[in-house]
Amino acid sequence: MKNTFGNNVTLTLFGESHGQAVGAVLDGMAPGVPVDEEYIAKKLSQRSGLPEVSTARREPDSFRIVSGVFEGKTTGTPMCIIIENKDTKSNDYQRGPARPGHADYTAFVKYHGYEDYRGGGHFSGRLTAPVVAAGAVAMQALNERGILICTHIKSCGGVSDHAFGDIPEDFIRLENSAYPVLDEAVGEQMRELTAAAAADGDSIGGILETAVYGPEAGLGEPFFDSVESLISHALFSIPAVKGIEFGAGFSFGKMHGSEANDPIDYDGSDVITRTNNNGGINGGITNGMPIIFSTAVKPTPSIFKEQETVDFIKKTDEKLSLKGRHDPAIFHRAAPVISAVTALVICDLLSMRYGNDFLQKRQ
Amino acid sequence: MKNTFGNNVTLTLFGESHGQAVGAVLDGMAPGVPVDEEYIAKKLSQRSGLPEVSTARREPDSFRIVSGVFEGKTTGTPMCIIIENKDTKSNDYQRGPARPGHADYTAFVKYHGYEDYRGGGHFSGRLTAPVVAAGAVAMQALNERGILICTHIKSCGGVSDHAFGDIPEDFIRLENSAYPVLDEAVGEQMRELTAAAAADGDSIGGILETAVYGPEAGLGEPFFDSVESLISHALFSIPAVKGIEFGAGFSFGKMHGSEANDPIDYDGSDVITRTNNNGGINGGITNGMPIIFSTAVKPTPSIFKEQETVDFIKKTDEKLSLKGRHDPAIFHRAAPVISAVTALVICDLLSMRYGNDFLQKRQ
Amino acid sequence: MKNTFGNNVTLTLFGESHGQAVGAVLDGMAPGVPVDEEYIAKKLSQRSGLPEVSTARREPDSFRIVSGVFEGKTTGTPMCIIIENKDTKSNDYQRGPARPGHADYTAFVKYHGYEDYRGGGHFSGRLTAPVVAAGAVAMQALNERGILICTHIKSCGGVSDHAFGDIPEDFIRLENSAYPVLDEAVGEQMRELTAAAAADGDSIGGILETAVYGPEAGLGEPFFDSVESLISHALFSIPAVKGIEFGAGFSFGKMHGSEANDPIDYDGSDVITRTNNNGGINGGITNGMPIIFSTAVKPTPSIFKEQETVDFIKKTDEKLSLKGRHDPAIFHRAAPVISAVTALVICDLLSMRYGNDFLQKRQ
Amino acid sequence: MKNTFGNNVTLTLFGESHGQAVGAVLDGMAPGVPVDEEYIAKKLSQRSGLPEVSTARREPDSFRIVSGVFEGKTTGTPMCIIIENKDTKSNDYQRGPARPGHADYTAFVKYHGYEDYRGGGHFSGRLTAPVVAAGAVAMQALNERGILICTHIKSCGGVSDHAFGDIPEDFIRLENSAYPVLDEAVGEQMRELTAAAAADGDSIGGILETAVYGPEAGLGEPFFDSVESLISHALFSIPAVKGIEFGAGFSFGKMHGSEANDPIDYDGSDVITRTNNNGGINGGITNGMPIIFSTAVKPTPSIFKEQETVDFIKKTDEKLSLKGRHDPAIFHRAAPVISAVTALVICDLLSMRYGNDFLQKRQ
Repeated sequence: MKNTFGNNVTLTLFGESHGQAVGAVLDGMAPGVPVDEEYIAKKLSQRSGLPEVSTARREPDSFRIVSGVFEGKTTGTPMCIIIENKDTKSNDYQRGPARPGHADYTAFVKYHGYEDYRGGGHFSGRLTAPVVAAGAVAMQALNERGILICTHIKSCGGVSDHAFGDIPEDFIRLENSAYPVLDEAVGEQMRELTAAAAADGDSIGGILETAVYGPEAGLGEPFFDSVESLISHALFSIPAVKGIEFGAGFSFGKMHGSEANDPIDYDGSDVITRTNNNGGINGGITNGMPIIFSTAVKPTPSIFKEQETVDFIKKTDEKLSLKGRHDPAIFHRAAPVISAVTALVICDLLSMRYGNDFLQKRQ
Repeated sequence: MKNTFGNNVTLTLFGESHGQAVGAVLDGMAPGVPVDEEYIAKKLSQRSGLPEVSTARREPDSFRIVSGVFEGKTTGTPMCIIIENKDTKSNDYQRGPARPGHADYTAFVKYHGYEDYRGGGHFSGRLTAPVVAAGAVAMQALNERGILICTHIKSCGGVSDHAFGDIPEDFIRLENSAYPVLDEAVGEQMRELTAAAAADGDSIGGILETAVYGPEAGLGEPFFDSVESLISHALFSIPAVKGIEFGAGFSFGKMHGSEANDPIDYDGSDVITRTNNNGGINGGITNGMPIIFSTAVKPTPSIFKEQETVDFIKKTDEKLSLKGRHDPAIFHRAAPVISAVTALVICDLLSMRYGNDFLQKRQ
Repeated sequence: MKNTFGNNVTLTLFGESHGQAVGAVLDGMAPGVPVDEEYIAKKLSQRSGLPEVSTARREPDSFRIVSGVFEGKTTGTPMCIIIENKDTKSNDYQRGPARPGHADYTAFVKYHGYEDYRGGGHFSGRLTAPVVAAGAVAMQALNERGILICTHIKSCGGVSDHAFGDIPEDFIRLENSAYPVLDEAVGEQMRELTAAAAADGDSIGGILETAVYGPEAGLGEPFFDSVESLISHALFSIPAVKGIEFGAGFSFGKMHGSEANDPIDYDGSDVITRTNNNGGINGGITNGMPIIFSTAVKPTPSIFKEQETVDFIKKTDEKLSLKGRHDPAIFHRAAPVISAVTALVICDLLSMRYGNDFLQKRQ
Repeated sequence: MKNTFGNNVTLTLFGESHGQAVGAVLDGMAPGVPVDEEYIAKKLSQRSGLPEVSTARREPDSFRIVSGVFEGKTTGTPMCIIIENKDTKSNDYQRGPARPGHADYTAFVKYHGYEDYRGGGHFSGRLTAPVVAAGAVAMQALNERGILICTHIKSCGGVSDHAFGDIPEDFIRLENSAYPVLDEAVGEQMRELTAAAAADGDSIGGILETAVYGPEAGLGEPFFDSVESLISHALFSIPAVKGIEFGAGFSFGKMHGSEANDPIDYDGSDVITRTNNNGGINGGITNGMPIIFSTAVKPTPSIFKEQETVDFIKKTDEKLSLKGRHDPAIFHRAAPVISAVTALVICDLLSMRYGNDFLQKRQ
């Protein structure tokens, strides 16, 4: 479905970086979800990132919900969210040599040269702004059911944050954090690494970790719509995401089954596991433990250092030194995007299990 | 769509481990693809694995194509492939304590106790047999277009295989290999590690690496149907897969943009990249370089060592020591499954770009 | 999705008339539905039709459910139903001149000549047998919720049956009827018209009417997945269906709003309408009244009378006089097919509203 | 998918009658289609209808394309079209007694009272404006391939228009017609019937007929995505549509096979049929003849005559006499909507057969 994702709760994205607007249509959301525009604005602000480690393009992402909300609540019909592009300086962007690590060449081939190439066009990270806005509505629906989602920077350039501890507490910290780390001192180090890369005209990548706290057991639609499948499908659509692992993930490659298997126990009347190597998912279905996964985000490919490339129109070899405004890192800005995408997937899973009215139904 | 995956080329899976049969319906395949039943059988045999490192359940996976093939070629209408379950010993399997690492408990919650729990039922790795059979047809279609797909064991328990070198050569080696490694000596070490785990009543995990050689630039349907999204969606449906990374993947978390970006160059009239950290994909679209990704496969959760768990029917704590036939490793058997799934996704991408008749159309 | 239909409850069809088998995969059905194989057999027998007005090909449609049923109930995982083709006489069918009214030419163009052309191949009415079998399971699920579906012949060659009266009574009559009419005398006339056409080497068409009794208000997913949209999508896939109208349908073209609008009233605490010109659907959503629609079925195109056509291989004009076994009418055999398709759509709508577990949830 | 329709070319609708805006996202359209905003405006104007037979709400439907078009041509990425609601008088509309023939009650049940009920909300005919705008782009794509689509009023209150004659000529006439009839004198009679209904505080229904001229043979994706299935699915989503028939449609119920079957012939090297009872479709696939179908549109349910109904909030019986602005007929305004929907479906079929680049590929 290309620019539409989801089974029962779907998101359709549109827009280009330097066109009139970017936006999203959220369809299938349960009716009656309170829509808090301040919360959406806060999430958009987290996506914009700290000035010191983000692009100088400081467009306030003012959004407009043009449908699907009535008297402050979702109606159950499609919600269209539009974010106008105001602060675009298109003259900064002309078709030129292919920027390494970007989609300039692949988009040209795919769209036969008709694509809006300015600033990455439809491939710009700017498309994640409406994702975050729609995801904020999904999070409000989930909060009504006691489900919390949060993402922190797990590591960057060899510096690692704490693992998740008490997730509801971590959630509160991260909800109110300008830079999503559990340990502020570590965050300071990461920002220094980022600043150092920036000073060198370079950029830097990072790993994020996400927790979904409170999902009941029984969500997921295997064989093909396993929880991992749906989350990864949505996450790999986010620009710069290049890896995902659930629970112990790639560490399983060095483990024995006796270490990897999570012993099962009762916590009162709840079935729990004592470890969570499976990241809260067995057979593609939630087991009631927190869903835990990590996401690899590559360094932003826009760097000022000289790079070797080609001009595929002129068919010449070129040296390229980018100018303009570019983030030296985007992984921290990806944190709210990843949480948003995850919230949308969990709503979709709830709707598949409980139907359109999933908000009204608790286990 | 639960048990159906794909946009234009779709696979629908059915069956349970100890029911009458498992099978698949492959729809949307281009008409005119030669169907070589021996090749399908060979791929099914590779999925069965070497006797020394696989389960003693040595059921020859005889398949039957009951539709969609006429005079040795695909018709373009749905191909149903059925693999009867013959060698099932259901008495080995009764509802008992939840097996750690398996879907026993989650399936029970999801299906309200109506699921066929015998041998993992619909969650059994046995469901991957029809995937391999359908994927073998997809591979034949791709070979007609010069696209090759192969998977080797990248690492297991700290032992690592060579990286891919000349992919067409590696492809030929792996096509004819009983144990999918590029370096036989390394394979021997891996089998020893597996045998050691087995001797201990335990199991072991591994990492696989896959190459898609020869795809033209321009495949992929972002925003949401990026190449990474479609491949990861399908792969995370395979039992035991817990992580996927494209190109440099999680290593991006320690890289600078100047290292991560792949310099672009001309090779004759072809646009290429000098390195392939992006795994052949930019902006979710193929760039013409080989698609490279790694997949983490957890140790098979069926082990003979005693484990702690619960009986969720009786609501009691239990100790569990499995009996019967169980693989000490499944990662090597996952190699043909991953290649098969990838072949189906690439056919789907070709069909979205070129239509039903993608076989007839080359760039 | 080509051969897969439905959102949450899906049906995937496969097979050709003279291949090994035809069949279907029913996915997303609620777990716990009792599966009564005798009821399925009865429905298949109704689809086969009365010997006197149907083809002499009297293959007993023995079916086999190879997955998705455990201990007599649906598991919630895909149910594959296979009907082997036994009594095929392929020598009766060779590629020859295009049969007027059939898909011989269109399938040839679409599939580039690779299609299995024998007996209509994938376009044969035989594909409706697995639809009926899967629909019988859906009907059992609906009966558990008090929803009844029945279809009768509304008219044929100018002879008309009674309108529906007390639908539960009509349902019982039609469930046990070999020829689906409410007035037996009218049925006798229809069979005479059919016999007369047959005696003349010709065939005859008819109109069917269907009632869905007992659906609660609130089912339907407009804008695009309105109840009418989903039912018509599925019905127009049935070979020979060429028209569908809901409620007053084409009669609306001669009506004023004051006649057309159904006055609304209370029946106890239930909202009802006094007339049912809208066929139980307003704005694409059920209003709680019976869903009523009519379906036009064209005369079977296989006739013995000489017809003018072409041989598109030889590129010659031809006269064609069919031989072999052909029904002089198929509309009566379409009745159980239409009910089956409708049952599948209603289950899909219930699943979208109430989720996978719709069986467990009543209003 | 609720508010998204299509396989490869999809339309997502959003908006409510008295919310901020209505709009659509068109995804999957081939890149390079010239976008003529004047043509879109003309089609929107035809949807608004003649002042004398349409509502006094004369909002100029000014639209804005906020994405997916660059330098006057489609980019291949999603095109979002927004039509702001300016001339809404929400005070005219308050929750009151259920309007007979409308979705007031069914929407209330479905959305649990959270729906935007003003002016029909998401169920308003106003939602068809963005359909027409998106369809106008699809028509421009089709015109590039020589495919023409046009719709006229076939009958109204017993008065009938000419049948289609030379379709390219009829197309030109209808493209430039304020009231879509082939015979102006008949149109005059229809407008008189409409005026008479209006004078009586009543409304009137009609039948429309559509022709698709120039589609090549071989389009259609049976079993379930037959041409009839896709067209009817989309058409039955349009408010007030209650019946559809292809070719001879319901007349087949009185025909013999020898009349119904279309004799096949050669016209030069083209395979044609001498009659077109099958409406250009055999086995769900186009045969190269014009696709012909009729659509029944019910009288607009908003009438000024007193009607009996209930207030489902107060749970009382009520008499209702509507006030405000209401069309005495909508069938003539439905003509451009039906053509638009059909154009979108044909583009989708072309994309399934030829891929994203269908514009570049001719038979």
